[in-house]
Amino acid sequence: MDPMNWLDEVKWDAQGLVPVIAQEQGSNDVLMFAWMNREALQKTAELGRAVYYSRSRQRLWFKGEESGHVQTVHDIRLDCDNDVVLLKVTQQGHEPGIACHTGRHSCFFQQYDADKAGWTAVDPVLKAPESIYK
Amino acid sequence: MDPMNWLDEVKWDAQGLVPVIAQEQGSNDVLMFAWMNREALQKTAELGRAVYYSRSRQRLWFKGEESGHVQTVHDIRLDCDNDVVLLKVTQQGHEPGIACHTGRHSCFFQQYDADKAGWTAVDPVLKAPESIYK
Repeated sequence: MDPMNWLDEVKWDAQGLVPVIAQEQGSNDVLMFAWMNREALQKTAELGRAVYYSRSRQRLWFKGEESGHVQTVHDIRLDCDNDVVLLKVTQQGHEPGIACHTGRHSCFFQQYDADKAGWTAVDPVLKAPESIYK
Repeated sequence: MDPMNWLDEVKWDAQGLVPVIAQEQGSNDVLMFAWMNREALQKTAELGRAVYYSRSRQRLWFKGEESGHVQTVHDIRLDCDNDVVLLKVTQQGHEPGIACHTGRHSCFFQQYDADKAGWTAVDPVLKAPESIYK
């Protein structure tokens, strides 16, 4: 029998996935949220580069494979329930880093505005998506 | 018909839930990850205090209801796909803030150690859980 593997300690959900938060090293900004399967987490650790599992495309997603906006991984954390992963990353390919497919720094650019009782996009587009995804 | 409600713009999953990241205002530390249903998000906005949905207890969970470790909410963000929420919070009741039920600052205290190929608890317990939950 194999010895206890660190990947076995993760509580994978019914789909074999775990939620992942990517946080920028230095600024500590939360850049994005995605999912990993077992292979994605193993490859992330191996390569020192964020590899997610795309639920829509149902395959491994090497972050930056199209955009060049690769994430170098400095730290991999697991939460108290062993069912959420937190990465500390450097967002490569643009300065400041662009993690979002909309060309923004972070995916969390919509802010709840209590006065309007609505969501407002408050962070700028740093690069047009058309020039990121050719 | 009701006008379009900000809560309708959130893409709730099949269980009527959305994943939520709580980040500390100031330090930008990621404190915890939890879930909200529609009522929890509405109450969070109303009260300016984090209200989650406990999947294990299947009810609203007013963060700090037992521990006193309430989270004051400064900012509510929604991601580009409208299916993840990010809160900026101040963790009340202890200095530094304790968000984790283990008595730690953050739930993400287990670090992947490549040399050991295993997870190691690297952050200190700030207060014994037995004295938090009486």
